[in-house]
Amino acid sequence: MMKKFQSALLIHHRLHGKLIISSKIPVKGKKILSLIYTPGVAEAVIEIAKNKDSIYDLTIKNNTIAVVTDGSAVLGLGNVGPEAALPVMEGKCAIFAEFADINAFPICLKTQNVDEIIQTIKNISPVFGGINLEDIAAPACFEIEERLQKELDIPVMHDDQHATAIVVLAGLINSAKVVNKDLKKCKVVITGAGAAGNAIAKLLNFYGVENIILVDSKGIIGSLRKDLDDYKKKLLPITNKDNLSGDLKTATNLGDILIGVSQKGIFTREIIKSLNHKAIVFALANPDPEVTFSDAKKWGVSVYACGRSDYPNQINNALVFPGFFRGLLKGKITKITNHMKVNAAQSLASLIKNPTPNNFIPSIFDNRLVPCIVKSLLK
Amino acid sequence: MMKKFQSALLIHHRLHGKLIISSKIPVKGKKILSLIYTPGVAEAVIEIAKNKDSIYDLTIKNNTIAVVTDGSAVLGLGNVGPEAALPVMEGKCAIFAEFADINAFPICLKTQNVDEIIQTIKNISPVFGGINLEDIAAPACFEIEERLQKELDIPVMHDDQHATAIVVLAGLINSAKVVNKDLKKCKVVITGAGAAGNAIAKLLNFYGVENIILVDSKGIIGSLRKDLDDYKKKLLPITNKDNLSGDLKTATNLGDILIGVSQKGIFTREIIKSLNHKAIVFALANPDPEVTFSDAKKWGVSVYACGRSDYPNQINNALVFPGFFRGLLKGKITKITNHMKVNAAQSLASLIKNPTPNNFIPSIFDNRLVPCIVKSLLK
Repeated sequence: MMKKFQSALLIHHRLHGKLIISSKIPVKGKKILSLIYTPGVAEAVIEIAKNKDSIYDLTIKNNTIAVVTDGSAVLGLGNVGPEAALPVMEGKCAIFAEFADINAFPICLKTQNVDEIIQTIKNISPVFGGINLEDIAAPACFEIEERLQKELDIPVMHDDQHATAIVVLAGLINSAKVVNKDLKKCKVVITGAGAAGNAIAKLLNFYGVENIILVDSKGIIGSLRKDLDDYKKKLLPITNKDNLSGDLKTATNLGDILIGVSQKGIFTREIIKSLNHKAIVFALANPDPEVTFSDAKKWGVSVYACGRSDYPNQINNALVFPGFFRGLLKGKITKITNHMKVNAAQSLASLIKNPTPNNFIPSIFDNRLVPCIVKSLLK
Repeated sequence: MMKKFQSALLIHHRLHGKLIISSKIPVKGKKILSLIYTPGVAEAVIEIAKNKDSIYDLTIKNNTIAVVTDGSAVLGLGNVGPEAALPVMEGKCAIFAEFADINAFPICLKTQNVDEIIQTIKNISPVFGGINLEDIAAPACFEIEERLQKELDIPVMHDDQHATAIVVLAGLINSAKVVNKDLKKCKVVITGAGAAGNAIAKLLNFYGVENIILVDSKGIIGSLRKDLDDYKKKLLPITNKDNLSGDLKTATNLGDILIGVSQKGIFTREIIKSLNHKAIVFALANPDPEVTFSDAKKWGVSVYACGRSDYPNQINNALVFPGFFRGLLKGKITKITNHMKVNAAQSLASLIKNPTPNNFIPSIFDNRLVPCIVKSLLK
């Protein structure tokens, strides 16, 4: 691990920044300069001033998104601040560029005040065709996303929530086939009720999964809990239909599916053993999962996935966000619906014709990924 | 003109945005992905969290600037708003990329409130190594620049002010040689007391020019004027030493140098004829100058320049801003001084060994420009 990490630092030193901004057209000679800059550029200015929509034809807005963070929940490292968050945002932007030919630019905000974050993003919005919120802590991320979706006329998506939820749903659609169960009838337990857990629960509910139980660090989320914030209270109508209370083990008893978006190692032998037969376990804490591949297999799990690239079936939102934003921009879609997310998940799942425990989700390098998600959004 | 403008619109349609953001390194295969993104990227995050300065080694900050406007004073077109300003900002960013290998990204702000502009720029500052303010109307541009220079730890420059002032000073240094006058002893009249006129007056004063007169649309700026805003009042101690009042013609009487950063056609025959012998006239209104090349020559002007690319001696801030920001970034210079501006102007002027009326300022395509300005800043 040490060696790998050192080479990651080295490569960051050597690259001196992972992105490059260039002119689409070489600025050679006065002729071209007078077309793309003064005086010719005035014609594009006048055209947009007359007809604001022509900004999509005449500028980068049609293909440019902001990847915005406040540095409050970066990877598994927590509130490291906007400066330290920049390498991650650059990495994300590099993925957008490489996988989906999108101009993505990192915006790292020197504020963690919700109103100020919203105002700042609104103020810089004219240049962008979409906003990808990133690594913003719950519950602030929910309010920021909701209000921006209402107040801006471009799509806004917090991908730690929705891209994660889409790829989890895709994985579950295929995993259920592997174990020959009806996903909608499965008992699904989710540990972690932050951005990802919240969004997974909502999307599974919309898809039709009837029995979902969320567990946070204080135990099962249910109506008897007195410590729930507003965003956790909103989960009560769609989860825990038997009104359980108690700890993780109470929740996992005879569970068919266990999804961890929480922390390293909490899926112990006892927890895994409490699950139903032919159990599906997605242990998505990064970089160290809730249970390792080998322990999960040893303790009888039928289908296992984690977020790491060094195991099969990597469940990572990078499978979704390049294609999803490519589709949003292409279709000039301003409002993201649950239908779109389910369509994307189903399309993603359909790329694997005969799912098996070792192969039920495509690789991030599968070049069918982006076009299939784009197509799912435009239908 | 019509044909040229149509081809400018066409090229904007065809390009569909003039900038492209790409990954410096191809993201091919899990190995490289795990280095530039999770999990490897965590090492860069941790390094910056420990030592904030390492952001310059590990991210794009060392070579990335924002080109920021509120769309309030775009070209000669006025307050067209942030959307219509975008093609100009993209053009500027393309010039930064092509001439100085700088990552420049356009930020068009959906607010024209001074406090909100300042707060927004501060909030997005972590990603940037410098801020280029652009096409912001006076007097707001002065307060925005001053406060940001105080409150940010990266260089902030409004180039409509300072890059223009530098190139004008460079042009005057060489023009004075052409007519064999001592620039510091010349009577200099400037029409237009907005961003450019203000900055030109201040820089000429710092350089040592003793007799500077500013004229705005209401006449000569002097102590008897009751309508001066704070920014024009600040010019009183450094201009109009004879305390003149009156109209443009009163100002230009026996003037050695006349600089227009105002509007089309106002340098009439009568005005030009009122100047001293061997007069120097820079008519910089864009796209139509205060007096045309042919009229100026007909009426006896010795040295003439305008802002257009279709005449010799184009005085355009694009001669300065790519090299100036390249130097600021390279030297990690956070505070821009008048000394630096004078050094840059002198270096720029020195590129023309034997100035003549037809050749006293380098072309924007002269590849010695950027290195010479960088060198002037680092000495």
